[in-house]
Amino acid sequence: MTRSLAALDDLLAAADADAYCIEAGSDDSNQLYLSGFDAPDPFFTAYTGEQLAILVSGLEYGRATKESNADAVARLSTYNYAERAAEDGQAAALAGVYADFLADLGVESALVPERFPVGVADGLRDRGLAVDVDGDDVVETVRATKTEAELDAVRRATAANEAAMAAAEDLIAAADVADDGTLVIEEDGETTSLTSERVKEEIEVTLLRHGCALDETIVACGADAADPHDRGSGPLRAGESVIIDIFPREKASKYHSDMTRTFAKGGASDAIGEWFALTEEALEAALDAVEPGATGAEVHAAVCDVYEDADHPTLRSDPDTETGFIHSTGHGVGLDVHERPGLNPRGEELEPGHVITVEPGLYDPEVGGVRIEDIVIVTEDGYENLTADSPVELVVQ
Amino acid sequence: MTRSLAALDDLLAAADADAYCIEAGSDDSNQLYLSGFDAPDPFFTAYTGEQLAILVSGLEYGRATKESNADAVARLSTYNYAERAAEDGQAAALAGVYADFLADLGVESALVPERFPVGVADGLRDRGLAVDVDGDDVVETVRATKTEAELDAVRRATAANEAAMAAAEDLIAAADVADDGTLVIEEDGETTSLTSERVKEEIEVTLLRHGCALDETIVACGADAADPHDRGSGPLRAGESVIIDIFPREKASKYHSDMTRTFAKGGASDAIGEWFALTEEALEAALDAVEPGATGAEVHAAVCDVYEDADHPTLRSDPDTETGFIHSTGHGVGLDVHERPGLNPRGEELEPGHVITVEPGLYDPEVGGVRIEDIVIVTEDGYENLTADSPVELVVQ
Repeated sequence: MTRSLAALDDLLAAADADAYCIEAGSDDSNQLYLSGFDAPDPFFTAYTGEQLAILVSGLEYGRATKESNADAVARLSTYNYAERAAEDGQAAALAGVYADFLADLGVESALVPERFPVGVADGLRDRGLAVDVDGDDVVETVRATKTEAELDAVRRATAANEAAMAAAEDLIAAADVADDGTLVIEEDGETTSLTSERVKEEIEVTLLRHGCALDETIVACGADAADPHDRGSGPLRAGESVIIDIFPREKASKYHSDMTRTFAKGGASDAIGEWFALTEEALEAALDAVEPGATGAEVHAAVCDVYEDADHPTLRSDPDTETGFIHSTGHGVGLDVHERPGLNPRGEELEPGHVITVEPGLYDPEVGGVRIEDIVIVTEDGYENLTADSPVELVVQ
Repeated sequence: MTRSLAALDDLLAAADADAYCIEAGSDDSNQLYLSGFDAPDPFFTAYTGEQLAILVSGLEYGRATKESNADAVARLSTYNYAERAAEDGQAAALAGVYADFLADLGVESALVPERFPVGVADGLRDRGLAVDVDGDDVVETVRATKTEAELDAVRRATAANEAAMAAAEDLIAAADVADDGTLVIEEDGETTSLTSERVKEEIEVTLLRHGCALDETIVACGADAADPHDRGSGPLRAGESVIIDIFPREKASKYHSDMTRTFAKGGASDAIGEWFALTEEALEAALDAVEPGATGAEVHAAVCDVYEDADHPTLRSDPDTETGFIHSTGHGVGLDVHERPGLNPRGEELEPGHVITVEPGLYDPEVGGVRIEDIVIVTEDGYENLTADSPVELVVQ
């Protein structure tokens, strides 16, 4: 696969717009993808079909000419930004500069993504530009299909992630169980509590040693694990489920991976054991449904079927439920850890080159939580499971 | 200091608007600050002066009721989001849900920040809401003045940062100089090149051990150091300046710190030595200007004066210069690593409780780069330098 902006060209033609425009820093993955330029502060990108032009501050100008995808790089000072900001304030000055930059490109009508800043959009409209919103976020759709280089980046992030998961499991395996049921470890000759925070530190240091960074990790035990977005804290306890969900970003490429395992030290309750077996079954049912032409909605439905057949509530059977299967089945992974395609009730068609996670799970504060998440590439004839070698085993002795 | 939303109340009254609204995830610091809720996906916050209400997905509902600042928490399913999305698509469904949520709050006119998504703004306007843009970003102005708890968070992040800087300096001090002038270290009985990447790893691991995370660090040597935004790569070399700029975030509080030191292993050229002395002088001049009532513009001018008096170009003397002092003097630090107040030509008035960095520097690809950055709290009678105990010394033997 090589990167294709054909969908963007088609959209510009269909909308009769002169350019697709983004104003954001590279923390906006559409901006990073389209411009190819990694810079923290907002800058302006205009894609006309014929050329990609970016407008940056003087501070970023030299690097932008060397590192970005742009055919043309302009700088704010060319449009007298500083003088205009002193006179009219920053917001008006920026809108004026952007309008002049677009005029130089011959752009009179722009398509922008949903999350384009309204202040800039209104400023351009006030200056006579037509600004319409692309409600379908075409760049995110383009991003969903990865090139070989992008897939390799996800593979490297996944290998780092598997090493971090193994390090976390090793730490739990090495722990002892204190009289009060909490886990303890011997470190530097001292016995200390094995906490969620300590396991996260092990995960994060392992990822750093493998060239990956991450903002957050989930190591959630017991009732914490019953809330899918709880990051977890405090001592881990034997016999309770511990959900470990790690979603690192390779620092060099900025591509992510994402995987989850659930462990129980020394053994688990019957309920957790049953949930785990059922979640493995749901994972297999979902993976069986993954192939080009299937939709994310169908994969999600396969998971709901398994859980509902076993009398667990899902958001499909009860949109307000707070227990059972209370999230979507998965999501695309790339520059964002959550991106297209979605494996949810509205999930679109899967295509070769998509990278998706499949992550069924069950939750109830009275019981705990169980989640198993693999990350796979959709291929011409099915899928390739990148986390197939990471064992799926609940009990850690 | 306690948090005050008085400026927001005043703005709503002056604009005759019913609510200040934000639609973003907590990666948007205004959203995190106003809502007090840390969630990755976009959610809707409406502040009416009388109450703060937030609208979240079912997945976040339980946590939002426990953890957010909101007086009222609503969920998407109450407004039949799933059904509407299936029928009208996600963008239209969200706009409809937000409009109904605002109607329930009695809100007919909304003020939104510059970076509020245009797709949502246009969707609300289409449904009869008046949506005007707050061009002054009032929440960021409110955020600039920190409470004692926020200052304590910055102090903790700064202590971690100083430990990381010391670890980096220790690593350079422990290095030897190879025949080709590159730095080498003995690790695990082997001699390996001391690279920018290896120093960054040391910094990052140290920060993790102190409860802080970071996306990026700058360890830039020689010509790399001449570009203020270059992160640096490859072997470090003796006699060249190495800029180390670290800007971590405390994971628990999400508050940042930021500091920079410049080192030269074994000695430095006369040019770098002169630049370093001049930059220390510029730092002192800037700090002398920091007090309540002074403006960020005045502090910035003090630095420009020092450099221009020594015949170095600045962006004030030449807006297009690519050498000399080519950035602003500093910025506020808090939930964002770059926030208000700015120490730049448009810098606003400093007030007690502001946290700012002061970071003069000189750059030229023929020479290298030098930057020294301290972080200070503006106090009633001047400032408190949080990095006063971190030595400012160029040469590392």
